[in-house]
Amino acid sequence: MSFSFKLATLLYSVCMLLPAAAQAQFARAEDAVEYRNGAFFVMDYHYDRIGDMIKGKIPYDKAVAESDAAIIDALGKLPWHAFTPNSITENSRAKEEIWQQKDKFKAAADKMQGETTKLAAASKTGDLAKLKTAFLATAQTCKECHDTFRKKKK
Amino acid sequence: MSFSFKLATLLYSVCMLLPAAAQAQFARAEDAVEYRNGAFFVMDYHYDRIGDMIKGKIPYDKAVAESDAAIIDALGKLPWHAFTPNSITENSRAKEEIWQQKDKFKAAADKMQGETTKLAAASKTGDLAKLKTAFLATAQTCKECHDTFRKKKK
Repeated sequence: MSFSFKLATLLYSVCMLLPAAAQAQFARAEDAVEYRNGAFFVMDYHYDRIGDMIKGKIPYDKAVAESDAAIIDALGKLPWHAFTPNSITENSRAKEEIWQQKDKFKAAADKMQGETTKLAAASKTGDLAKLKTAFLATAQTCKECHDTFRKKKK
Repeated sequence: MSFSFKLATLLYSVCMLLPAAAQAQFARAEDAVEYRNGAFFVMDYHYDRIGDMIKGKIPYDKAVAESDAAIIDALGKLPWHAFTPNSITENSRAKEEIWQQKDKFKAAADKMQGETTKLAAASKTGDLAKLKTAFLATAQTCKECHDTFRKKKK
């Protein structure tokens, strides 16, 4: 059994079992903030790299875009359970609205995950135009959520 | 095609294409540090939760352990390309030895990834004793690498 196949099998369990993993156990608000900031930062890096390809800042490389999109799609499942009640610290730009409008926040998170799945699919086509369309649709969901639920930078 | 199947297919491309993704493009040392700290922090959270199950602090739940181990195994592939030359900041505990002893550092990183793959396999057996063995073996690779390549906390 190849390494890649074994790893794929293991990753499959991430998908199957994510609801089970979505049980928050953060000892401190700072830990919850660091967890979700970490997941978002790693996502952002890979998202920005796809953006750089679309903008022509770096050459388009299907394999890199495909890997980036898959990482984005997988990591996009993780931050949400770390929005534990009252977990706003000096390192967090989370707004109170996250907890005041739980259903709206969940809907925004779900929408983003829907778009990252499409982004991952688009990355596999090798069609830069399709990648761009999915990239912009994903960006729109980021923006919508940030507009309502994230504080502006100081 | 189910959502889980589609996601698994996309995650499969992470495994196939990781070498392609391992091209660092960090504009600043701070970004490289935040990326790798983020990936390690998210890994640690899921690792600690498996540890809590093994120690009996929380009930053993096969599904949670399996998901945690799969996340650890996937994230364990990411931090290494972010150890860009001279990327030591006040937020980094990286030691100069990482760049002075590149082969040794790579061997330590590879060893850890070998053990996280075994951890993910052990998590699927549902056997807590096997999970513990793999958990301790993984912990040992963390420790070995930290002893040589990570500064002590101030």
